[in-house]
Amino acid sequence: MAHKNIPDIVIGRLPIYLRSLQRMAQEGRQVTSSQELGERLGISAAQIRKDLSQFGEFGKQGTGYNIEFLSNKIRDILNVNRNWDVAIIGAGDIGGALARYNGFNQRGFTIKMIFDNNPSKIGMKIDNFTVLDIANLKEEIAGAGVQVAMMAVPAAYAQDVADRLVAAGIKAILNYAPVNLNVPAGVRVQHIDPAVHLQRMTYYLD
Amino acid sequence: MAHKNIPDIVIGRLPIYLRSLQRMAQEGRQVTSSQELGERLGISAAQIRKDLSQFGEFGKQGTGYNIEFLSNKIRDILNVNRNWDVAIIGAGDIGGALARYNGFNQRGFTIKMIFDNNPSKIGMKIDNFTVLDIANLKEEIAGAGVQVAMMAVPAAYAQDVADRLVAAGIKAILNYAPVNLNVPAGVRVQHIDPAVHLQRMTYYLD
Repeated sequence: MAHKNIPDIVIGRLPIYLRSLQRMAQEGRQVTSSQELGERLGISAAQIRKDLSQFGEFGKQGTGYNIEFLSNKIRDILNVNRNWDVAIIGAGDIGGALARYNGFNQRGFTIKMIFDNNPSKIGMKIDNFTVLDIANLKEEIAGAGVQVAMMAVPAAYAQDVADRLVAAGIKAILNYAPVNLNVPAGVRVQHIDPAVHLQRMTYYLD
Repeated sequence: MAHKNIPDIVIGRLPIYLRSLQRMAQEGRQVTSSQELGERLGISAAQIRKDLSQFGEFGKQGTGYNIEFLSNKIRDILNVNRNWDVAIIGAGDIGGALARYNGFNQRGFTIKMIFDNNPSKIGMKIDNFTVLDIANLKEEIAGAGVQVAMMAVPAAYAQDVADRLVAAGIKAILNYAPVNLNVPAGVRVQHIDPAVHLQRMTYYLD
Protein backbone atom coordinates (compact mmCIF):
# COMPACT_ATOMS: atom_id res chain seq x y z
CA MET A 1 0.00 0.00 0.00
CA ALA A 2 1.14 3.48 -0.78
CA HIS A 3 -0.21 5.70 1.98
CA LYS A 4 1.00 4.25 5.25
CA ASN A 5 1.80 7.54 6.97
CA ILE A 6 -1.78 8.76 7.20
CA PRO A 7 -3.00 9.19 10.80
CA ASP A 8 -5.32 6.37 11.87
CA ILE A 9 -7.96 8.91 12.85
CA VAL A 10 -8.20 9.92 9.18
CA ILE A 11 -8.47 6.27 8.14
CA GLY A 12 -11.24 5.92 10.72
CA ARG A 13 -13.33 8.59 8.98
CA LEU A 14 -13.08 7.05 5.50
CA PRO A 15 -15.57 4.21 6.21
CA ILE A 16 -18.02 6.85 7.47
CA TYR A 17 -17.63 8.85 4.26
CA LEU A 18 -18.02 5.66 2.21
CA ARG A 19 -21.19 4.64 4.08
CA SER A 20 -22.74 8.04 3.45
CA LEU A 21 -21.73 8.02 -0.23
CA GLN A 22 -23.23 4.54 -0.66
CA ARG A 23 -26.47 5.81 0.85
CA MET A 24 -26.51 8.75 -1.56
CA ALA A 25 -25.93 6.34 -4.46
CA GLN A 26 -28.91 4.26 -3.24
CA GLU A 27 -30.95 7.45 -3.28
CA GLY A 28 -30.07 7.78 -6.97
CA ARG A 29 -27.67 10.68 -6.48
CA GLN A 30 -24.62 11.14 -8.71
CA VAL A 31 -22.77 14.20 -7.42
CA THR A 32 -22.12 15.57 -3.95
CA SER A 33 -19.93 18.17 -2.27
CA SER A 34 -17.80 18.28 0.85
CA GLN A 35 -20.41 20.73 2.22
CA GLU A 36 -23.28 18.29 1.79
CA LEU A 37 -21.29 15.33 3.07
CA GLY A 38 -20.20 17.42 6.03
CA GLU A 39 -23.77 18.42 6.88
CA ARG A 40 -24.91 14.81 6.76
CA LEU A 41 -22.05 13.69 8.97
CA GLY A 42 -21.59 16.58 11.35
CA ILE A 43 -18.00 17.01 10.14
CA SER A 44 -16.67 20.25 8.64
CA ALA A 45 -16.36 20.42 4.86
CA ALA A 46 -12.75 21.56 5.31
CA GLN A 47 -11.95 18.42 7.34
CA ILE A 48 -13.43 16.19 4.65
CA ARG A 49 -11.48 17.94 1.87
CA LYS A 50 -8.28 17.72 3.92
CA ASP A 51 -8.80 14.03 4.67
CA LEU A 52 -9.48 13.13 1.04
CA SER A 53 -6.66 15.31 -0.31
CA GLN A 54 -4.19 13.06 1.51
CA PHE A 55 -4.98 10.37 -1.06
CA GLY A 56 -5.25 12.41 -4.26
CA GLU A 57 -7.50 14.80 -6.13
CA PHE A 58 -10.98 13.32 -6.18
CA GLY A 59 -13.17 16.32 -6.88
CA LYS A 60 -13.17 19.40 -9.08
CA GLN A 61 -13.39 22.90 -7.67
CA GLY A 62 -16.96 24.04 -8.15
CA THR A 63 -18.36 20.75 -9.45
CA GLY A 64 -17.94 18.61 -6.34
CA TYR A 65 -17.42 14.86 -6.17
CA ASN A 66 -18.77 12.20 -8.45
CA ILE A 67 -20.31 9.80 -5.93
CA GLU A 68 -19.51 6.56 -7.75
CA PHE A 69 -15.95 7.62 -8.54
CA LEU A 70 -15.23 8.77 -4.99
CA SER A 71 -16.84 5.62 -3.51
CA ASN A 72 -14.62 3.44 -5.66
CA LYS A 73 -11.53 5.42 -4.69
CA ILE A 74 -12.31 5.06 -0.99
CA ARG A 75 -12.99 1.34 -1.46
CA ASP A 76 -9.57 1.07 -3.11
CA ILE A 77 -7.91 2.88 -0.22
CA LEU A 78 -9.68 0.76 2.41
CA ASN A 79 -9.01 -2.48 0.51
CA VAL A 80 -12.71 -3.30 0.33
CA ASN A 81 -12.89 -3.36 -3.46
CA ARG A 82 -12.38 -7.09 -2.82
CA ASN A 83 -14.07 -9.57 -0.49
CA TRP A 84 -12.74 -10.50 2.96
CA ASP A 85 -13.88 -13.76 4.50
CA VAL A 86 -14.73 -13.41 8.19
CA ALA A 87 -14.85 -15.89 11.07
CA ILE A 88 -17.12 -15.26 14.07
CA ILE A 89 -16.05 -16.64 17.44
CA GLY A 90 -18.90 -17.06 19.92
CA ALA A 91 -22.41 -18.18 18.96
CA GLY A 92 -24.22 -16.30 21.73
CA ASP A 93 -26.54 -13.32 21.35
CA ILE A 94 -24.05 -11.06 19.61
CA GLY A 95 -22.27 -13.71 17.55
CA GLY A 96 -25.63 -15.00 16.34
CA ALA A 97 -26.79 -11.50 15.46
CA LEU A 98 -23.59 -10.91 13.47
CA ALA A 99 -24.01 -14.23 11.64
CA ARG A 100 -27.58 -13.31 10.67
CA TYR A 101 -26.83 -9.69 9.72
CA ASN A 102 -27.06 -9.24 5.97
CA GLY A 103 -25.30 -5.88 5.72
CA PHE A 104 -21.72 -7.12 5.42
CA ASN A 105 -21.68 -8.38 1.83
CA GLN A 106 -22.13 -5.03 0.15
CA ARG A 107 -19.34 -3.57 2.27
CA GLY A 108 -16.54 -6.01 1.54
CA PHE A 109 -17.11 -8.88 3.97
CA THR A 110 -18.53 -12.40 3.85
CA ILE A 111 -19.19 -14.36 7.03
CA LYS A 112 -17.64 -17.78 6.44
CA MET A 113 -17.81 -19.65 9.75
CA ILE A 114 -18.89 -19.38 13.36
CA PHE A 115 -17.36 -21.17 16.36
CA ASP A 116 -18.37 -21.90 19.93
CA ASN A 117 -17.00 -24.04 22.76
CA ASN A 118 -20.42 -25.02 24.14
CA PRO A 119 -21.36 -28.61 23.21
CA SER A 120 -25.03 -27.60 23.15
CA LYS A 121 -24.27 -25.02 20.44
CA ILE A 122 -21.73 -26.94 18.34
CA GLY A 123 -23.54 -28.40 15.33
CA MET A 124 -26.48 -26.02 15.75
CA LYS A 125 -27.68 -24.08 12.70
CA ILE A 126 -27.53 -20.25 12.71
CA ASP A 127 -28.80 -18.90 9.43
CA ASN A 128 -26.90 -20.99 6.87
CA PHE A 129 -24.02 -21.75 9.22
CA THR A 130 -23.38 -24.81 11.32
CA VAL A 131 -21.65 -23.80 14.55
CA LEU A 132 -18.14 -25.26 14.55
CA ASP A 133 -16.17 -26.57 17.51
CA ILE A 134 -13.67 -23.99 18.72
CA ALA A 135 -11.26 -26.89 19.24
CA ASN A 136 -10.87 -26.89 15.45
CA LEU A 137 -10.43 -23.13 15.17
CA LYS A 138 -6.86 -23.17 13.94
CA GLU A 139 -7.31 -25.81 11.22
CA GLU A 140 -10.55 -24.28 9.96
CA ILE A 141 -9.30 -20.69 9.83
CA ALA A 142 -5.80 -21.47 8.55
CA GLY A 143 -7.25 -23.99 6.08
CA ALA A 144 -9.64 -21.42 4.61
CA GLY A 145 -7.07 -18.60 4.74
CA VAL A 146 -9.40 -16.35 6.73
CA GLN A 147 -7.67 -13.17 7.96
CA VAL A 148 -10.52 -11.26 9.62
CA ALA A 149 -12.42 -12.29 12.78
CA MET A 150 -15.18 -10.93 15.00
CA MET A 151 -14.97 -12.13 18.61
CA ALA A 152 -18.04 -12.17 20.85
CA VAL A 153 -16.87 -14.33 23.74
CA PRO A 154 -16.94 -13.76 27.52
CA ALA A 155 -14.22 -11.39 28.76
CA ALA A 156 -12.48 -14.16 30.69
CA TYR A 157 -11.78 -16.11 27.47
CA ALA A 158 -11.04 -13.20 25.17
CA GLN A 159 -7.24 -13.06 25.38
CA ASP A 160 -6.91 -16.82 24.98
CA VAL A 161 -9.17 -16.80 21.93
CA ALA A 162 -7.27 -13.84 20.49
CA ASP A 163 -3.97 -15.71 20.89
CA ARG A 164 -5.42 -18.68 19.05
CA LEU A 165 -6.80 -16.47 16.28
CA VAL A 166 -3.39 -14.89 15.78
CA ALA A 167 -1.77 -18.34 15.68
CA ALA A 168 -4.32 -19.32 13.00
CA GLY A 169 -3.31 -16.40 10.79
CA ILE A 170 -5.94 -13.79 11.68
CA LYS A 171 -4.70 -10.24 11.01
CA ALA A 172 -7.71 -8.15 12.08
CA ILE A 173 -9.95 -8.74 15.11
CA LEU A 174 -13.16 -6.92 15.95
CA ASN A 175 -13.53 -7.59 19.67
CA TYR A 176 -16.93 -7.40 21.38
CA ALA A 177 -15.61 -8.61 24.75
CA PRO A 178 -15.30 -5.72 27.23
CA VAL A 179 -11.58 -6.21 27.72
CA ASN A 180 -8.42 -5.05 26.01
CA LEU A 181 -6.48 -7.55 23.89
CA ASN A 182 -2.74 -7.81 23.48
CA VAL A 183 -1.72 -8.88 20.01
CA PRO A 184 1.59 -8.85 18.15
CA ALA A 185 2.60 -6.05 15.80
CA GLY A 186 0.98 -6.56 12.42
CA VAL A 187 -2.36 -7.62 13.89
CA ARG A 188 -5.06 -4.95 14.17
CA VAL A 189 -7.75 -4.87 16.85
CA GLN A 190 -10.88 -2.75 17.11
CA HIS A 191 -13.17 -2.82 20.12
CA ILE A 192 -16.93 -2.53 20.40
CA ASP A 193 -18.10 -1.99 23.98
CA PRO A 194 -21.40 -0.17 24.41
CA ALA A 195 -20.58 0.94 27.97
CA VAL A 196 -17.42 2.67 26.71
CA HIS A 197 -19.46 4.54 24.10
CA LEU A 198 -22.10 5.49 26.66
CA GLN A 199 -19.48 6.80 29.11
CA ARG A 200 -17.95 8.90 26.36
CA MET A 201 -21.32 10.67 26.09
CA THR A 202 -22.26 11.00 29.78
CA TYR A 203 -19.16 13.16 30.19
CA TYR A 204 -21.10 15.88 28.38
CA LEU A 205 -24.37 15.44 30.31
CA ASP A 206 -25.24 17.14 33.57
CA MET B 1 -18.94 20.59 34.53
CA ALA B 2 -15.52 22.14 34.76
CA HIS B 3 -13.45 20.71 31.93
CA LYS B 4 -15.35 21.36 28.74
CA ASN B 5 -12.35 22.29 26.59
CA ILE B 6 -10.76 18.85 26.60
CA PRO B 7 -10.58 17.27 23.12
CA ASP B 8 -13.21 14.57 22.63
CA ILE B 9 -10.49 12.10 21.64
CA VAL B 10 -9.08 12.41 25.18
CA ILE B 11 -12.56 11.87 26.64
CA GLY B 12 -12.86 8.80 24.43
CA ARG B 13 -9.79 7.22 26.06
CA LEU B 14 -10.98 7.71 29.65
CA PRO B 15 -13.57 4.87 29.54
CA ILE B 16 -10.82 2.58 28.25
CA TYR B 17 -8.55 3.54 31.15
CA LEU B 18 -11.44 3.06 33.58
CA ARG B 19 -12.28 -0.37 32.20
CA SER B 20 -8.68 -1.49 32.58
CA LEU B 21 -8.44 -0.06 36.11
CA GLN B 22 -11.66 -1.86 37.10
CA ARG B 23 -10.19 -5.11 35.81
CA MET B 24 -7.01 -4.56 37.85
CA ALA B 25 -9.17 -3.90 40.93
CA GLN B 26 -11.01 -7.18 40.27
CA GLU B 27 -7.62 -8.87 40.16
CA GLY B 28 -7.03 -7.53 43.67
CA ARG B 29 -4.49 -4.93 42.58
CA GLN B 30 -4.12 -1.60 44.41
CA VAL B 31 -1.46 0.39 42.59
CA THR B 32 -0.53 0.75 38.93
CA SER B 33 1.59 2.99 36.74
CA SER B 34 1.14 4.75 33.43
CA GLN B 35 3.70 2.26 32.06
CA GLU B 36 1.68 -0.77 33.08
CA LEU B 37 -1.60 0.73 31.95
CA GLY B 38 0.04 1.67 28.66
CA GLU B 39 1.33 -1.84 28.08
CA ARG B 40 -2.10 -3.32 28.76
CA LEU B 41 -3.76 -0.88 26.40
CA GLY B 42 -1.19 -0.40 23.66
CA ILE B 43 -1.05 3.32 24.42
CA SER B 44 2.14 5.15 25.39
CA ALA B 45 2.68 5.92 29.08
CA ALA B 46 3.33 9.54 28.12
CA GLN B 47 -0.06 9.77 26.39
CA ILE B 48 -1.83 8.40 29.46
CA ARG B 49 -0.03 10.83 31.80
CA LYS B 50 -0.80 13.72 29.48
CA ASP B 51 -4.50 12.75 29.20
CA LEU B 52 -4.92 12.41 32.97
CA SER B 53 -2.96 15.58 33.74
CA GLN B 54 -5.66 17.58 31.95
CA PHE B 55 -7.96 16.83 34.90
CA GLY B 56 -5.57 17.15 37.84
CA GLU B 57 -2.75 15.38 39.63
CA PHE B 58 -3.81 11.79 40.22
CA GLY B 59 -0.51 10.01 40.82
CA LYS B 60 2.76 10.60 42.59
CA GLN B 61 6.09 10.55 40.80
CA GLY B 62 7.68 7.20 41.54
CA THR B 63 4.72 5.63 43.35
CA GLY B 64 2.23 5.47 40.51
CA TYR B 65 -1.54 5.59 40.71
CA ASN B 66 -3.79 4.25 43.44
CA ILE B 67 -6.25 2.20 41.38
CA GLU B 68 -9.35 2.86 43.47
CA PHE B 69 -8.63 6.58 43.75
CA LEU B 70 -7.94 6.99 40.03
CA SER B 71 -11.01 4.91 39.11
CA ASN B 72 -13.19 7.14 41.25
CA LYS B 73 -11.69 10.27 39.74
CA ILE B 74 -12.35 9.02 36.21
CA ARG B 75 -15.89 8.03 37.17
CA ASP B 76 -16.39 11.57 38.48
CA ILE B 77 -15.08 13.07 35.24
CA LEU B 78 -17.26 10.79 33.07
CA ASN B 79 -20.33 11.34 35.27
CA VAL B 80 -20.71 7.62 35.94
CA ASN B 81 -20.35 7.88 39.71
CA ARG B 82 -24.14 7.91 39.45
CA ASN B 83 -26.65 5.75 37.63
CA TRP B 84 -28.09 6.55 34.19
CA ASP B 85 -31.33 4.91 33.17
CA VAL B 86 -31.27 3.67 29.58
CA ALA B 87 -34.01 2.97 27.03
CA ILE B 88 -33.46 0.44 24.24
CA ILE B 89 -35.28 0.97 20.95
CA GLY B 90 -35.64 -2.17 18.86
CA ALA B 91 -36.22 -5.64 20.30
CA GLY B 92 -34.46 -7.57 17.54
CA ASP B 93 -31.21 -9.51 17.80
CA ILE B 94 -29.07 -6.61 18.98
CA GLY B 95 -31.69 -4.90 21.16
CA GLY B 96 -32.46 -8.20 22.85
CA ALA B 97 -28.76 -8.89 23.43
CA LEU B 98 -28.34 -5.43 24.99
CA ALA B 99 -31.39 -5.98 27.24
CA ARG B 100 -29.97 -9.29 28.47
CA TYR B 101 -26.38 -8.07 28.89
CA ASN B 102 -25.52 -7.80 32.57
CA GLY B 103 -22.37 -5.71 32.25
CA PHE B 104 -23.97 -2.26 32.31
CA ASN B 105 -24.85 -1.92 36.01
CA GLN B 106 -21.31 -1.83 37.31
CA ARG B 107 -20.41 0.82 34.74
CA GLY B 108 -23.06 3.43 35.47
CA PHE B 109 -26.09 2.29 33.46
CA THR B 110 -29.39 0.52 34.14
CA ILE B 111 -31.58 -0.69 31.31
CA LYS B 112 -35.09 0.56 32.12
CA MET B 113 -37.25 -0.18 29.11
CA ILE B 114 -37.24 -1.64 25.60
CA PHE B 115 -39.50 -0.66 22.69
CA ASP B 116 -40.47 -2.15 19.36
CA ASN B 117 -43.04 -1.36 16.67
CA ASN B 118 -43.76 -4.98 15.77
CA PRO B 119 -47.10 -6.18 17.20
CA SER B 120 -45.68 -9.69 17.54
CA LYS B 121 -42.93 -8.35 19.83
CA ILE B 122 -44.90 -5.81 21.87
CA GLY B 123 -45.82 -7.39 25.20
CA MET B 124 -43.17 -10.11 24.81
CA LYS B 125 -40.79 -10.72 27.72
CA ILE B 126 -37.04 -10.19 27.24
CA ASP B 127 -35.21 -10.93 30.45
CA ASN B 128 -37.22 -8.96 33.04
CA PHE B 129 -38.55 -6.47 30.50
CA THR B 130 -41.87 -6.41 28.72
CA VAL B 131 -41.41 -4.97 25.23
CA LEU B 132 -43.25 -1.65 25.04
CA ASP B 133 -45.09 -0.18 22.06
CA ILE B 134 -42.94 2.41 20.30
CA ALA B 135 -46.15 4.43 19.87
CA ASN B 136 -45.80 5.26 23.60
CA LEU B 137 -42.11 6.11 23.37
CA LYS B 138 -42.43 9.78 24.22
CA GLU B 139 -44.69 9.37 27.26
CA GLU B 140 -42.68 6.47 28.66
CA ILE B 141 -39.27 8.11 28.24
CA ALA B 142 -40.29 11.61 29.23
CA GLY B 143 -42.37 10.23 32.12
CA ALA B 144 -39.39 8.30 33.50
CA GLY B 145 -36.93 11.11 32.79
CA VAL B 146 -34.64 8.81 30.80
CA GLN B 147 -31.82 10.70 29.03
CA VAL B 148 -29.79 7.88 27.47
CA ALA B 149 -30.92 5.54 24.68
CA MET B 150 -29.50 2.71 22.60
CA MET B 151 -31.08 2.36 19.16
CA ALA B 152 -31.00 -0.93 17.27
CA VAL B 153 -33.57 -0.33 14.55
CA PRO B 154 -33.39 -0.78 10.76
CA ALA B 155 -31.49 1.98 8.98
CA ALA B 156 -34.63 3.21 7.21
CA TYR B 157 -36.30 4.07 10.54
CA ALA B 158 -33.27 5.37 12.39
CA GLN B 159 -33.58 9.11 11.77
CA ASP B 160 -37.29 9.11 12.57
CA VAL B 161 -36.70 7.22 15.82
CA ALA B 162 -33.84 9.58 16.70
CA ASP B 163 -36.11 12.59 16.16
CA ARG B 164 -38.69 11.07 18.49
CA LEU B 165 -36.05 10.26 21.11
CA VAL B 166 -34.83 13.85 21.06
CA ALA B 167 -38.42 15.12 21.41
CA ALA B 168 -38.83 12.81 24.43
CA GLY B 169 -35.82 14.35 26.17
CA ILE B 170 -33.03 11.91 25.27
CA LYS B 171 -29.59 13.58 25.36
CA ALA B 172 -27.30 10.68 24.38
CA ILE B 173 -27.94 8.07 21.69
CA LEU B 174 -25.86 4.99 20.99
CA ASN B 175 -26.86 4.12 17.44
CA TYR B 176 -26.47 0.58 16.07
CA ALA B 177 -28.16 1.38 12.75
CA PRO B 178 -25.59 1.69 9.93
CA VAL B 179 -26.56 5.26 9.11
CA ASN B 180 -25.60 8.70 10.34
CA LEU B 181 -28.07 10.60 12.51
CA ASN B 182 -28.72 14.32 12.56
CA VAL B 183 -29.53 15.63 16.01
CA PRO B 184 -29.69 19.12 17.49
CA ALA B 185 -26.80 20.68 19.39
CA GLY B 186 -26.75 19.41 22.96
CA VAL B 187 -27.59 15.83 21.97
CA ARG B 188 -24.66 13.39 21.67
CA VAL B 189 -24.56 10.45 19.28
CA GLN B 190 -22.12 7.54 19.12
CA HIS B 191 -22.23 4.91 16.40
CA ILE B 192 -21.54 1.20 16.47
CA ASP B 193 -21.26 -0.31 13.00
CA PRO B 194 -19.13 -3.44 12.71
CA ALA B 195 -18.49 -2.93 8.97
CA VAL B 196 -17.02 0.52 9.70
CA HIS B 197 -14.66 -1.00 12.26
CA LEU B 198 -13.68 -3.82 9.90
CA GLN B 199 -12.96 -1.38 7.05
CA ARG B 200 -10.75 0.67 9.34
CA MET B 201 -8.60 -2.45 9.77
CA THR B 202 -8.56 -3.77 6.19
CA TYR B 203 -6.82 -0.54 5.19
CA TYR B 204 -3.72 -1.97 6.86
CA LEU B 205 -3.98 -5.47 5.35
CA ASP B 206 -2.53 -6.57 2.01
